[in-house]
Amino acid sequence: MTKFDEATQAIRIDETTYDVCLDPGYSIGGPLNGGYLMAVVLRAVVDDSPFEHPVSTTSQFHRSPAPGPAQVRVERLKAGRTAAFTRATLVQDGVPQIESLVTTATLTGADPVYSDKPGHVMPPLEECVKLPNPKPESNMTLNAQMELSFDPPTIAWLNGGPTGRPESRAYFRMAEPQDPDPFVLALAVDALPPVVFSAGLRGWAPTVDLTWHLRALPAPGLLTLIGGGRLISDGWFDEEVEVWDSAGRLVAQSRQLARVGRG
Amino acid sequence: MTKFDEATQAIRIDETTYDVCLDPGYSIGGPLNGGYLMAVVLRAVVDDSPFEHPVSTTSQFHRSPAPGPAQVRVERLKAGRTAAFTRATLVQDGVPQIESLVTTATLTGADPVYSDKPGHVMPPLEECVKLPNPKPESNMTLNAQMELSFDPPTIAWLNGGPTGRPESRAYFRMAEPQDPDPFVLALAVDALPPVVFSAGLRGWAPTVDLTWHLRALPAPGLLTLIGGGRLISDGWFDEEVEVWDSAGRLVAQSRQLARVGRG
Repeated sequence: MTKFDEATQAIRIDETTYDVCLDPGYSIGGPLNGGYLMAVVLRAVVDDSPFEHPVSTTSQFHRSPAPGPAQVRVERLKAGRTAAFTRATLVQDGVPQIESLVTTATLTGADPVYSDKPGHVMPPLEECVKLPNPKPESNMTLNAQMELSFDPPTIAWLNGGPTGRPESRAYFRMAEPQDPDPFVLALAVDALPPVVFSAGLRGWAPTVDLTWHLRALPAPGLLTLIGGGRLISDGWFDEEVEVWDSAGRLVAQSRQLARVGRG
Repeated sequence: MTKFDEATQAIRIDETTYDVCLDPGYSIGGPLNGGYLMAVVLRAVVDDSPFEHPVSTTSQFHRSPAPGPAQVRVERLKAGRTAAFTRATLVQDGVPQIESLVTTATLTGADPVYSDKPGHVMPPLEECVKLPNPKPESNMTLNAQMELSFDPPTIAWLNGGPTGRPESRAYFRMAEPQDPDPFVLALAVDALPPVVFSAGLRGWAPTVDLTWHLRALPAPGLLTLIGGGRLISDGWFDEEVEVWDSAGRLVAQSRQLARVGRG
């Protein structure tokens, strides 16, 4: 069991409740990463479902839970012949933190009838760049859990040269070797720095809701994350991330609606 | 009050329940259109919320309700200073039909900080084509409620010449003159024929879940719907629709996960 598997473990304690322990190793400067929290919720949902694969997940982020014990409450809304629908609530100290609707089904891995190509071609891995290690006092512990190698222009905001449009692209793998699975993908769709940094904005950009779809089971190896956005307006922005696996297959698609930071 | 306003009316009967009457005029060959049903749900949610604008809506389609009386049950999950979160369930004869999570907030109409352009340029309205009137026995009553004028290649599947990729693009307005509003947009994001028809597939393509974001309040006039998809695989496809208003502004973004038809 990897550290990530352990950090996302959900232990059933009754018909509708799972105990989880939120790991301080997934902090993004205080709050825990939303993708990590979705992975925890999905462990409970998948365990409870007759189907293995969370094909669609929507999470609303109501509050920011602290590291430590919490529960996932699952409510099976409907289970059909080929898909099941679950409501899941992450609760801490009796207070709901994250509300999710999840659809589970079984993906067979059949060849696609139609597949588009990535909207951007990534440079080779050796031309990509890593973020500098965060200062310990920043409490950005998430960075140590994964290796992100960025398409250089999309990280140029770090040195004051944003591209002027919302974008972020990187190769992704877990720091501790682990084949990607749906739970790793939940982390991956929310692993990039906010795409608005490339548009010249800064500051804490909290996710309000995030929907992602699991489209295929990822092949072992590096993932490619292609992130962008369409509109920054009225204090809100959208962030879309596509995850492609090492076999060149689209394995996940996400869109989140988030707040423009004030910092 | 337009026919659409009337068909989506929700009348509060107690703290958490609204009476609605599902209109047979929004049928797509038997089942009622998902966008219409979301508009009905949103009437109740917005009435109950301290905020006016449904900025994010996710609906899971569990069952297909029949025309006639139904209820929307709303549960306010959290109301903050600038956004509120609601769970809403469309119930008919005591049986849950559609489960939704909605985030409401207030959009001010400020100028965007950043906006992308539409991915496709539409031909002028006079070069676009309408679908033939459906046969009465098809029970496609939805078509009479709205006027869709299609970018010709994306409707060529009708005459056996699909483009080979998932796409559908059209100008949209209500048949009965009405300025677009968030409820009309809920209808608009699910108003196109399934994008997979252009990829050569046919048959009933039921939506399993749909998430859409209201990004700005639409200006009066024609809407432009730009629909596409990225992957058809394992019996599932994604359909993305962007809605642009007559002022050239991105007003809504949606993605749905749907089943490939068997017909």
